[in-house]
Amino acid sequence: MKKKSVKFSKTVMSQIMLPGQANPSGNVHGGEIMKQMDNTAYVVARKHCRNNVVTARVDEMQFLKPVFVDNLITCRAHLVFVGHSSMEVRVRVEVENLETSEQPEVALTAYFTMVALDEAGKPTAVPGLKLETEKQKREYAKGKKRYQKYKNDKQK
Amino acid sequence: MKKKSVKFSKTVMSQIMLPGQANPSGNVHGGEIMKQMDNTAYVVARKHCRNNVVTARVDEMQFLKPVFVDNLITCRAHLVFVGHSSMEVRVRVEVENLETSEQPEVALTAYFTMVALDEAGKPTAVPGLKLETEKQKREYAKGKKRYQKYKNDKQK
Amino acid sequence: MKKKSVKFSKTVMSQIMLPGQANPSGNVHGGEIMKQMDNTAYVVARKHCRNNVVTARVDEMQFLKPVFVDNLITCRAHLVFVGHSSMEVRVRVEVENLETSEQPEVALTAYFTMVALDEAGKPTAVPGLKLETEKQKREYAKGKKRYQKYKNDKQK
Amino acid sequence: MKKKSVKFSKTVMSQIMLPGQANPSGNVHGGEIMKQMDNTAYVVARKHCRNNVVTARVDEMQFLKPVFVDNLITCRAHLVFVGHSSMEVRVRVEVENLETSEQPEVALTAYFTMVALDEAGKPTAVPGLKLETEKQKREYAKGKKRYQKYKNDKQK
Amino acid sequence: MKKKSVKFSKTVMSQIMLPGQANPSGNVHGGEIMKQMDNTAYVVARKHCRNNVVTARVDEMQFLKPVFVDNLITCRAHLVFVGHSSMEVRVRVEVENLETSEQPEVALTAYFTMVALDEAGKPTAVPGLKLETEKQKREYAKGKKRYQKYKNDKQK
Amino acid sequence: MKKKSVKFSKTVMSQIMLPGQANPSGNVHGGEIMKQMDNTAYVVARKHCRNNVVTARVDEMQFLKPVFVDNLITCRAHLVFVGHSSMEVRVRVEVENLETSEQPEVALTAYFTMVALDEAGKPTAVPGLKLETEKQKREYAKGKKRYQKYKNDKQK
Repeated sequence: MKKKSVKFSKTVMSQIMLPGQANPSGNVHGGEIMKQMDNTAYVVARKHCRNNVVTARVDEMQFLKPVFVDNLITCRAHLVFVGHSSMEVRVRVEVENLETSEQPEVALTAYFTMVALDEAGKPTAVPGLKLETEKQKREYAKGKKRYQKYKNDKQK
Repeated sequence: MKKKSVKFSKTVMSQIMLPGQANPSGNVHGGEIMKQMDNTAYVVARKHCRNNVVTARVDEMQFLKPVFVDNLITCRAHLVFVGHSSMEVRVRVEVENLETSEQPEVALTAYFTMVALDEAGKPTAVPGLKLETEKQKREYAKGKKRYQKYKNDKQK
Repeated sequence: MKKKSVKFSKTVMSQIMLPGQANPSGNVHGGEIMKQMDNTAYVVARKHCRNNVVTARVDEMQFLKPVFVDNLITCRAHLVFVGHSSMEVRVRVEVENLETSEQPEVALTAYFTMVALDEAGKPTAVPGLKLETEKQKREYAKGKKRYQKYKNDKQK
Repeated sequence: MKKKSVKFSKTVMSQIMLPGQANPSGNVHGGEIMKQMDNTAYVVARKHCRNNVVTARVDEMQFLKPVFVDNLITCRAHLVFVGHSSMEVRVRVEVENLETSEQPEVALTAYFTMVALDEAGKPTAVPGLKLETEKQKREYAKGKKRYQKYKNDKQK
Repeated sequence: MKKKSVKFSKTVMSQIMLPGQANPSGNVHGGEIMKQMDNTAYVVARKHCRNNVVTARVDEMQFLKPVFVDNLITCRAHLVFVGHSSMEVRVRVEVENLETSEQPEVALTAYFTMVALDEAGKPTAVPGLKLETEKQKREYAKGKKRYQKYKNDKQK
Repeated sequence: MKKKSVKFSKTVMSQIMLPGQANPSGNVHGGEIMKQMDNTAYVVARKHCRNNVVTARVDEMQFLKPVFVDNLITCRAHLVFVGHSSMEVRVRVEVENLETSEQPEVALTAYFTMVALDEAGKPTAVPGLKLETEKQKREYAKGKKRYQKYKNDKQK
């Protein structure tokens, strides 16, 4: 399989937050934002491998700013690391008050690990990742460390 | 009020279509896509005027390609014309099959007319539109014609 | 195919507006009302042709009155014009405050063009429209003009 | 308070059933239909008393025909009996397959008892019911019996 | 078929009430709670018979306490009576304010009658109910009376 | 503030998975399950501190078994560690096929960190955790390590 670049599957998905997505306190439900992040990671992984994909892990999800109804959120996601059948996606959510914000602020960040499945629902090989910048190489090295840690933890 | 460019409020919003958004035949419900288009027009208008805005008209909405569950849709919207308190937004929806599409195809187009409201809910003046390209000027002229036609039709 | 009357497929659909259908400003989301209108046009067209139908165009959608949560909306729709496989449906939305309204007021109007599809998903012929009143004939003539205008615009 | 007729608050509400309203087996979720019935009873009671109303009881809800996705359901509801602050509403749901049905069939029936609340949330008196037909008088007598039975059961 | 105990299929299902589930007055929509109750009765019946099941009746549904957004509701359901293919489930809903409640209060009660269906969608026999306590026997006797009353009413 | 036991706020929340919660491939959307997990962690934290709470982090979320429409999922959650204003909640999701499962299987596990907020929306102190078993003490020690790691990472 031919390697694909990080840029190839990079994805941006925006949504305006509606009252039906509020949590009991009236802010946007954390679960709704996680759902948007999961959708974005799904698109990145699908674009990279062109297979069906499922979420396998979510790590280091941090809520840095509250998100309110009527805010615009923008999920930016790109591949960080690629294993045999797994793909680690970095997702960053930016939030913007359409009336007052000068520029978007980072509201959440997380790593989503997606696994490619063949038609029988079994994990299947995905294309490698063509690393084109120094930053991509550094991120890849860290992603590989996380990947190996999970693998080791599983075997125990 | 200082004029703002078309580029300033240009907005792109993407979503993956879920089974809960299907219509009775199993395709994506036209109303769900209209809702996404309306959200995008809302964001464009809010960014331009920084006021509350409501939808006043929708015109020439064309469904050019069917949209299926699991497709990625991308709404691209920008201002075409600005009246005293009204803003005409051109919305284009692109659709992409994540497994097979070489590139997105245009699925819908429409014009949304949004009106800015002050805190009392009355129409309020919006910034003018700074036209920077020939295409923007041509679109503006056509938008003005539509605007004047509605105004005339109303007075009858 | 035997012609069918306008009355045969005339449809009335009412709904109470719930908080989960609000837009970011707290009124009912325009997209939610469009979805209800689309549903009503769908029912009219399905009743007329008994085939699967899809939305092909929406025109001249006007928002005349705001709709609030807890309002009752009533979509009234009937066929205006019928082409070979397309059906133009006039949809009028009335709104009523259940505590204070003496009678419903018109909140939105629009034309929805629906197309009948056969089992292979190809446009298929629909029954003609039996015109029984002067008003129906006038509406039909105007609908025909719009229909021919779209066809001409398409060919350019 | 002036009595109001049964006809005054009679309500008809229709909806097309969408895939997002299905139950785990793929039919329409009984709870979704109950929600539509509750909405219709709510509108009847609100029209009669012009107060806020809440559901107090549901009785004898019978599921007579299954409802499938893409069916049109029509809820027909009218007042049967009125106590001091309570209103018993008869709700009948008709179901129609838009492609094959010659005419709608009764799918569900039930009695909803709604209570009018004042601004402090306390039960408040509602207008009496003007009975205009023999059928209305018979239904009223049966409703009164149910009402008195509940009251007695409560006191035990 | 081997009898199964009441305890075997007893089910508890809890949910936090979100703003998207509110009714027009801002409390939780009665229909949303009915949907949760229906889900719980569905699980009880499925566990007992391991077949597909549908709701056939709802009786004596009483709303005893209002339910507000941000409340935790807990549906507790167990089998009361079992006929040839029908299963009567008692559902009790408890409500709790997470900030102030010392303990949950009963908000609703109802009887749901579920019917087991075979693969052709026809009613099919279900296991009998093993009664292990005096309370279960008393409930069963009352359930049997209701069951026979419906059957008689139907034949008239 | 008086310490509270782990048992005091332990929470179990079950739901049947509906077709409207499916992802594009037809399984249950990972984001829907995360939303249920977030709700359960929210209830645990609210019960412990009786304040408003928000999600601050999610860690080590693992998807171990796929969840399908019509499955019953049960979220079991309890407090693991408590800082000054933060509470770490362990959430385990069990999944059950109502027709075939002999017993539930673990489908997901994760750690949710919730923060208590006072009325001004500022972090506020929460009661300590009374540790009653050896297992609770071991979990607490590990939770403390994670807590200190985050704090250190933040300061860098």
